[in-house]
Amino acid sequence: MLPKIAITMGDPAGVGPEVCLAALCEPTIQDVCCPIIFGNSNVMSACAEALGSTARFERLSWTEFQTNSNRIYRPTVVDCFSMSGVSFKPGFISAFTGEASFQSIQRAIDAALKGFVAGVTTAPINKEAIHLAGHNYPGHTEMFAERCDSNRSCMMQFSDEITCTFVTVHCGYADVNQLLTQQRIVEVIELTTEAMWRLHNRKPKLVVCGLNPHAGEHGLFGDREEERIILPAIESCRNDRSEIEGPIPADTAFLPWKRASTDAFICMYHDQGHIPVKALAFDRAVNTTLGISIIRTSVDHGTALDIAWQGKANPGSMFAAIKLAVRLGDPKPVDDRV
Amino acid sequence: MLPKIAITMGDPAGVGPEVCLAALCEPTIQDVCCPIIFGNSNVMSACAEALGSTARFERLSWTEFQTNSNRIYRPTVVDCFSMSGVSFKPGFISAFTGEASFQSIQRAIDAALKGFVAGVTTAPINKEAIHLAGHNYPGHTEMFAERCDSNRSCMMQFSDEITCTFVTVHCGYADVNQLLTQQRIVEVIELTTEAMWRLHNRKPKLVVCGLNPHAGEHGLFGDREEERIILPAIESCRNDRSEIEGPIPADTAFLPWKRASTDAFICMYHDQGHIPVKALAFDRAVNTTLGISIIRTSVDHGTALDIAWQGKANPGSMFAAIKLAVRLGDPKPVDDRV
Repeated sequence: MLPKIAITMGDPAGVGPEVCLAALCEPTIQDVCCPIIFGNSNVMSACAEALGSTARFERLSWTEFQTNSNRIYRPTVVDCFSMSGVSFKPGFISAFTGEASFQSIQRAIDAALKGFVAGVTTAPINKEAIHLAGHNYPGHTEMFAERCDSNRSCMMQFSDEITCTFVTVHCGYADVNQLLTQQRIVEVIELTTEAMWRLHNRKPKLVVCGLNPHAGEHGLFGDREEERIILPAIESCRNDRSEIEGPIPADTAFLPWKRASTDAFICMYHDQGHIPVKALAFDRAVNTTLGISIIRTSVDHGTALDIAWQGKANPGSMFAAIKLAVRLGDPKPVDDRV
Repeated sequence: MLPKIAITMGDPAGVGPEVCLAALCEPTIQDVCCPIIFGNSNVMSACAEALGSTARFERLSWTEFQTNSNRIYRPTVVDCFSMSGVSFKPGFISAFTGEASFQSIQRAIDAALKGFVAGVTTAPINKEAIHLAGHNYPGHTEMFAERCDSNRSCMMQFSDEITCTFVTVHCGYADVNQLLTQQRIVEVIELTTEAMWRLHNRKPKLVVCGLNPHAGEHGLFGDREEERIILPAIESCRNDRSEIEGPIPADTAFLPWKRASTDAFICMYHDQGHIPVKALAFDRAVNTTLGISIIRTSVDHGTALDIAWQGKANPGSMFAAIKLAVRLGDPKPVDDRV
């Protein structure tokens, strides 16, 4: 029996519904999991009709899903909010579409925490719509963090070409220095090591980037953050679980041959890793949060309201996100797979 | 008559001599310029013999070169230092190889300042060797800056795939904020605009990167450096000489389709531009200094002592650097060329 993956529909007015429909039709998704869309079956049907999609799915209420989750083995849409007496227009967000996005996510988290699904993949939501609905979250990450016990976690951007994890992420450029501690770097190295074992089932090769240009060039640039903070963190993580190189200059870290021999790069700040990931693997990169109690992956694009419900959205990132959730959630070693 | 380009031989113990030899044999170089190697003809001959190179060149002393520069139209090596009574071993730097590198650069600068050559392309030198010889320069840039009047200049990394210029370069990560001023950004936008006109002879499309993740996301990250410093700089540069977009998030700036429609990216700090340039165009990127009184381009690699004089060095960056020097030094509009 294939693992069930909860896929949140995202903001109904965005490209979420259509990339979910695409996932329901995609053979390489059906091969690895049973996709369960958390959203609304009327919205999905309307979107399918608008796009001429042939996607087929079962429809269940949240109550029915909980009662029957053991017996579900076909693509299913779970109704997480009601469409009776309300309407919305594709491309236009509202308090309603924000609340709908929010409820879909909450039910998917419930399903994961109760063990009904092996993991959650999220379609894009709109921050403004979420705020209009009265929920003050900057994004998915914080919603998941609130409900999933975790005293340490980090972002990972995964693709076959390049995978990065992050010591700091959503903070100002000038705030990075004060957030850069030996303990935090150790955390991220350990979380990355664990994730790489899940994905590859072998000792991973990790590269830790420096902070300053040329990794400080022995104190020439910066305040020896490499020697004072990053190197001690690396040294304290040296064991037979991983092979770690660094700190190395960020601009030479991502050279083609270095990428080919590295399972994951540990980056000190947002753009250090997001620049190469997006330049090299846009449309294929998957965003995931390591260290939280449930598996959660996300597409790497927004609601794209300007092209919503037009069949133009590329579902590649959604497919990659679902497949990564399956891989991260699979307890079997790689060698046991086909 | 083709323009003469001075090519400094670099550290004799490094890969400089062999990439210079490669340039003397390369038809696409002969097609666009007359290459003049500034170094030593005995070193070049010894290297040619070691590698089985068939490169042919005239030999001139510095005095002879100055007297006859108008009549030179074949590949030439100008002796900038003496090899009598001294020796060195490929792969091993010394005070001698440092002094040799230094003298070659000084004569090439002389030649450019006196108008004997249209530009200078530099092969790699070794910082430690330069220091052993008693010269305290971090690199080429400072040697050129000292002798070429300039009250404003900036680094450009050029390649066909992606071209970046830099508001700040060799400073610590944490020093960037205090160096980021509206005036400096204006300088770099203007220098970039001028260089793009020289290269493309049309109104260039420029993209200015933000400093913070997501370009600050309207004050969510950082101290509104985008609104306070970068945007006013862009606004004050708006005229019919260029088309400027920004500040945009650095991680989306370098997406494939954005690269295809952008002539140059103005980057706030070293790794913001060096990460994508090296990830996407290693071996093809050329380093140049804009704003100084002579044209100067440089290979984008070091002395690579471990493979020196073995014929393993890739001369691609040297070829690209020479061709860029020709293009930057050519006062003719692009349309008038073949």
